Amino acid sequence: MEIYDWHTGPYPARVRIALAEKNLQSRVQFVSVDLWKGEHKKPEFLAKNYSGTLPLLELDDGTLIAECTAITEYLDALDGTPLLTGRTPLEKGVIHMMSRRAELELLDAVSVYFHHATPGLGPDVEIYQNREWGFRQRDKALRGMHYFNDVLKKQPFIAGEAFSMADITVIGDLIFAALVDLEVPAACEALRAWHPRMQERHSVRNRVTMSDPTLKA
Amino acid sequence: MEIYDWHTGPYPARVRIALAEKNLQSRVQFVSVDLWKGEHKKPEFLAKNYSGTLPLLELDDGTLIAECTAITEYLDALDGTPLLTGRTPLEKGVIHMMSRRAELELLDAVSVYFHHATPGLGPDVEIYQNREWGFRQRDKALRGMHYFNDVLKKQPFIAGEAFSMADITVIGDLIFAALVDLEVPAACEALRAWHPRMQERHSVRNRVTMSDPTLKA
Ligand SMILES: N[C@@H](CCC(=O)N[C@@H](CS)C(=O)NCC(=O)O)C(=O)O
Ligand SMILES: N[C@@H](CCC(=O)N[C@@H](CS)C(=O)NCC(=O)O)C(=O)O
Repeated sequence: MEIYDWHTGPYPARVRIALAEKNLQSRVQFVSVDLWKGEHKKPEFLAKNYSGTLPLLELDDGTLIAECTAITEYLDALDGTPLLTGRTPLEKGVIHMMSRRAELELLDAVSVYFHHATPGLGPDVEIYQNREWGFRQRDKALRGMHYFNDVLKKQPFIAGEAFSMADITVIGDLIFAALVDLEVPAACEALRAWHPRMQERHSVRNRVTMSDPTLKA
Repeated sequence: MEIYDWHTGPYPARVRIALAEKNLQSRVQFVSVDLWKGEHKKPEFLAKNYSGTLPLLELDDGTLIAECTAITEYLDALDGTPLLTGRTPLEKGVIHMMSRRAELELLDAVSVYFHHATPGLGPDVEIYQNREWGFRQRDKALRGMHYFNDVLKKQPFIAGEAFSMADITVIGDLIFAALVDLEVPAACEALRAWHPRMQERHSVRNRVTMSDPTLKA
């Protein structure tokens, strides 16, 4: 399998973490697509992923799977023992809800803020910006942090008693938030306590150097 | 189980169709939340679904599952024989990718257009609008129709050879597009041929009256 990604990207991080949690690193080769040069918006890449985003998984038979959630579903199902996406109907439902909510209320919101209300990937890539929308999304993400803080007051992980894809999505958000200098509010004590616990996980710690041990975060 | 929804809503339609495809209608009671009165933004409902959107599933033990994809995952897994969300890792991956892409490039885009560049649910509900962003999203959705048309030139269903959650998401989009008078471009012949095939399905035809046979579309 090949994974097209960029080593410090927050969405690529989600798949890198999933790979390590499932111990699949050795089965994957990484192909670097330079976001800062806009390589993900070039026709060759758009032909592989219509949405022009990273990460993208290419199987040995040429099948392409884009979207972090979809790639995680695939990887998690490979060995017949789902670890990240749920085993029972209830687990599946709750994990998918919380992961989607983490996208809507946090990660995708921070991404829109980055691309619309900051210089983003630079003028050659950000050919249209809507600053007002960008700032609205930043504020939404800050409210979202309070919501997830409330969740973590009641349970150790985002979707309940066990680590799951939903935690990975929130980790992706905090990686992105750090890149754009959005701090988790001091009042969000549960979220701030959960974060270092996540950063200690082997899968999270080694995500950047996974593709190349000489790389830096 | 209870489902909070609104009988003509495009996202609620996704779950209604999934229910009928899985033959689970008789196990569900519908609770009507009036979108046009903004009942989904009232504190009582926000306490159940932070994102303030329909549909929402409440299980008999009080567990709440929001987000169409998550609800569909839950319902599809209930009888141990997934029909809509994939059986193999590959099917799961491709169905999740195509359904997410249908949200990103079509359904969510049309929804933003409706809420931001049309009167939407009216001035009491639409307290912030960003018209420019709304129109951009409309244009994105129109491009998305061409993309899904290309997909359907090559295969009978959105995720391949069988009906799946990804078809349901695109059906939800075309329901929403019709509500806001966005027509599928004439050039999108494959998408225009696929649509009536979908509308003939029992699950799609009877979705509105599912909660109450006296209701109209
Ligand atoms: N919905 C996509 C979003 C992926 C995404 O936005 N990835 C970032 C990389 S961190 C990207 O490609 N951004 C480039 C851009 O939007 O121009 C997913 O879940 O995979
Ligand atoms: N991401 C949600 C979106 C649901 C959604 O937007 N539902 C519409 C009903 S058709 C809604 O509640 N809109 C009200 C609003 O956004 O004010 C899902 O997939 O369930």
